Amino acid sequence: MPENIFGVCASCVSFTVMVFFVLLVRFEQLQNLGEAYDVSVISPRNYFLFTPLLPGVTVGTNEERSIVEPIRKFCLRGGREVFKFYEAKCTGVDVANNRVICADMSPVSVKDANGIGKAMEFSLPYDYLVVAVGATTNTFNTPGVPENVQFLKSIEDAQALRTKIMDAIETANLPGVSDAERRRLLQFVVVGGGPTGVEFAAEVNDFFEEDLKPYFPSFVHDFSVVLIQSGDHILNTFDKRISEYTEAKFKRQNIKVLTETRVKAVNPTELVVLDKKTGVVVTLPYGVCMWSTGLKQKKIIRTIASSIPEQNHKLALLTDRFLKVKGTENVFAMGDCSEVEQPLLQKHLKELFVQADLNGDGVLEKEEFAAFLEDVVEDYPQLAVYSQKVGDLFEDFDTNKDGVLSLEEFTQCLKIVDSKVKTLSATAQVASQQGKYLAKSFNSRAQGLVASPFFYSHTGMLAKIGATDAVADLPSLGPLSGFVTWWVWGAVYLTNQFSLRNRVLVALDWCKVQVFGRDVSRF
Amino acid sequence: MPENIFGVCASCVSFTVMVFFVLLVRFEQLQNLGEAYDVSVISPRNYFLFTPLLPGVTVGTNEERSIVEPIRKFCLRGGREVFKFYEAKCTGVDVANNRVICADMSPVSVKDANGIGKAMEFSLPYDYLVVAVGATTNTFNTPGVPENVQFLKSIEDAQALRTKIMDAIETANLPGVSDAERRRLLQFVVVGGGPTGVEFAAEVNDFFEEDLKPYFPSFVHDFSVVLIQSGDHILNTFDKRISEYTEAKFKRQNIKVLTETRVKAVNPTELVVLDKKTGVVVTLPYGVCMWSTGLKQKKIIRTIASSIPEQNHKLALLTDRFLKVKGTENVFAMGDCSEVEQPLLQKHLKELFVQADLNGDGVLEKEEFAAFLEDVVEDYPQLAVYSQKVGDLFEDFDTNKDGVLSLEEFTQCLKIVDSKVKTLSATAQVASQQGKYLAKSFNSRAQGLVASPFFYSHTGMLAKIGATDAVADLPSLGPLSGFVTWWVWGAVYLTNQFSLRNRVLVALDWCKVQVFGRDVSRF
Repeated sequence: MPENIFGVCASCVSFTVMVFFVLLVRFEQLQNLGEAYDVSVISPRNYFLFTPLLPGVTVGTNEERSIVEPIRKFCLRGGREVFKFYEAKCTGVDVANNRVICADMSPVSVKDANGIGKAMEFSLPYDYLVVAVGATTNTFNTPGVPENVQFLKSIEDAQALRTKIMDAIETANLPGVSDAERRRLLQFVVVGGGPTGVEFAAEVNDFFEEDLKPYFPSFVHDFSVVLIQSGDHILNTFDKRISEYTEAKFKRQNIKVLTETRVKAVNPTELVVLDKKTGVVVTLPYGVCMWSTGLKQKKIIRTIASSIPEQNHKLALLTDRFLKVKGTENVFAMGDCSEVEQPLLQKHLKELFVQADLNGDGVLEKEEFAAFLEDVVEDYPQLAVYSQKVGDLFEDFDTNKDGVLSLEEFTQCLKIVDSKVKTLSATAQVASQQGKYLAKSFNSRAQGLVASPFFYSHTGMLAKIGATDAVADLPSLGPLSGFVTWWVWGAVYLTNQFSLRNRVLVALDWCKVQVFGRDVSRF
Repeated sequence: MPENIFGVCASCVSFTVMVFFVLLVRFEQLQNLGEAYDVSVISPRNYFLFTPLLPGVTVGTNEERSIVEPIRKFCLRGGREVFKFYEAKCTGVDVANNRVICADMSPVSVKDANGIGKAMEFSLPYDYLVVAVGATTNTFNTPGVPENVQFLKSIEDAQALRTKIMDAIETANLPGVSDAERRRLLQFVVVGGGPTGVEFAAEVNDFFEEDLKPYFPSFVHDFSVVLIQSGDHILNTFDKRISEYTEAKFKRQNIKVLTETRVKAVNPTELVVLDKKTGVVVTLPYGVCMWSTGLKQKKIIRTIASSIPEQNHKLALLTDRFLKVKGTENVFAMGDCSEVEQPLLQKHLKELFVQADLNGDGVLEKEEFAAFLEDVVEDYPQLAVYSQKVGDLFEDFDTNKDGVLSLEEFTQCLKIVDSKVKTLSATAQVASQQGKYLAKSFNSRAQGLVASPFFYSHTGMLAKIGATDAVADLPSLGPLSGFVTWWVWGAVYLTNQFSLRNRVLVALDWCKVQVFGRDVSRF
């Protein structure tokens, strides 16, 4: 009998849905294993969304339909249905009885005898469950945020931003609007200096410079973009040179960057912001405010976590290094809704020392230390960065220069190594690798093999910061910026599309903008 | 001093807005006349919409952005602003004081001191006013219509239909949905058998056949499209052979056509319909219901009409043959919101007879009759159809065959001719010609010339009734249908686009559907 596996994708952060999907593709390769699994995917959206291109959709650099691909396209392989898809929201998981509880929350729904629509509920059994619901935007409980700002997580968010931007501009153009009101309507404020915030700020600025300026010559000096960042630099997960390059570029353009600034409240027409350097609180009028400041777990994750004793203290679902949710036997989690537990060397100090001291002389020779690192690097990924520089590490911590490491020296060394442990970032890249990993690991299990733990390999970061400018932080090449990087950005994003259709449409969108400009129609 | 002219386009039926716009392009050609007019356009939408392709947008045959063009693109000529555009809704016209009253009804608006948004009002003076606001859909006061059906007049309507169609299909696919509910959800009902209703029915059917069927093999027999028409044939403004051809084609497909059927009420899950042939009332379950049944005047037209004594009895704005609103000196109207008064020959019977009787012998010889027709055809357009067959007309009414027309015979003749007087249909074609006419006529006025009255020339009708099938009713060629007509349909619609951009995008959309199919993502 095939085993049942369910993926719960209750998120509009559908990039994680996409990567979960990779799993299904791999499952398809399992056909010759006797169709080891019956796979079903549940998501309130019936499409994958390539979120990295969302900022461009807000001004028409790309069209919505170009960066989505229906999940159903992947359901069929050679005319055969290889997995089932249900468009519904997961509202709960009965971990004890292995059932997923779902509801159809969309407007066209099943009606009862009186013709009243209801959120039809149903539940499905599972043998294995993969949770990949993503996360929502964190508002840090700032008053006025949900009512007044616009997030940028979904197609609907991007459409709403596009409408609001043009609406603000058309309203500013009406007769009888005061100068102050016009400047307010034309001030676009972005809260959050991560890649989404930076790319959105650049896109809005380009939109004005390239498309709107000729139509509104009287606006030229009234239009402004303000980017608010609570840290001391924008793009602060990138190399510092990239942050500084981007800040300098924004300064040359019309984009004001306010670093070390925290939003205290959002009113209908202005933000109340605190300058952390001076302690001064000022107000900042805005026409449209986009909010993109870190992640918050979804309600469904809190619901699932609360039913598993081992999970109660955590926000995200804590998994072991095989992505299995701690405290469960058959629930897996990946992407923004999960956190992989990182093992600390310090916790097993004595055992590790004994293990390393092969000749039992109470100290570690260089060869013993090197062999030890090689042995345990798979269990302690934080050691990986030192694998090419064992000699340096050994010499750094051999403080008395006696050519061996004592237990004390070894302890100091492992503490420093442990301090390099980082929670995996909540990025599409991590989620994508986790999806591929889980597919492989389920395949191995079906073949009776033992899977190795998940290992994240960072390939770098990219952000588009202008019409023909991008920045990249690549482990292999270091920080890059400028025109060539912009081409790299385009090539990488085209390559990473879900399908040939997406690749063609995204490329056509870019050509269209070059030839005809962006569409300024408001809807 | 340049004179002020304002166009009020309060409609989402933007095709009339487009045709009004032709006027502005013509005005631009007036530059060498010393910029005779200051032109301003007011519309709550800042784009022109090519409504004839809307049915395809509901399923993704065309994308929304392909069939709109921003009005601002036309504001500039060689970098100079040739007319002003304000995105606002016209809420009233002060005919006595020559002012247009407008309000910004869109969500992003001017805020007062407390940050409360308000529908900012402003008014603008005019020397001449052109009203081209279009019309809305007539519900004939059928209970339940506004709450339960979806119209198809705007981009938002098309988007809502696209979402609802996919929503119904995804809901039907959920586990636990009863067979009856599934059949209901998959029954798409179209009320109104005009070109919009017929094209929408064909598009939905094609969408299922070409794109959805492979994904939902279990649905094949549950999916259905029903077209309800109160008259005895669908497409009843076309030649009868076309109606019959279309009905036969729909019968071969999955599309049920219910003629002579009237909708009595629309409940959330079913329509109550009366079969006029049998008098039987039955219910018809539906998942999505599209309503497209004739026109109703907008509130603004009733408001304007009520302030002009001569207009009080009319629904649409009654204009003379120069498109000037009766009872005003400087207000013009065109498109679906206006009706051109047709002069009746009978009213001036005696004068016309005296005018025709050149030799004063009390009867009309054939030559006198022919000369008379030529003389007055410009004032009485209903004579135009007879201009090539004066001989036939003369002989038909020379009842006593004495070779001349007596006053009585002449009277009979004019009565029959008058009976051919038809109100101009509320079509884009009429509105387009009226736009061009008004542009020309204002140009003439600026040059001190006298304009001739508006004369409508019917070039034919087209409708797409399937993936590779269309019908055409052309005065020159008669009724046509089939594959070649479908090519003609495509060529005509491509040619009639607003811009090269629209032409390229519409053509690319069609190619995209051929290569990749339609997008089934629900948003």
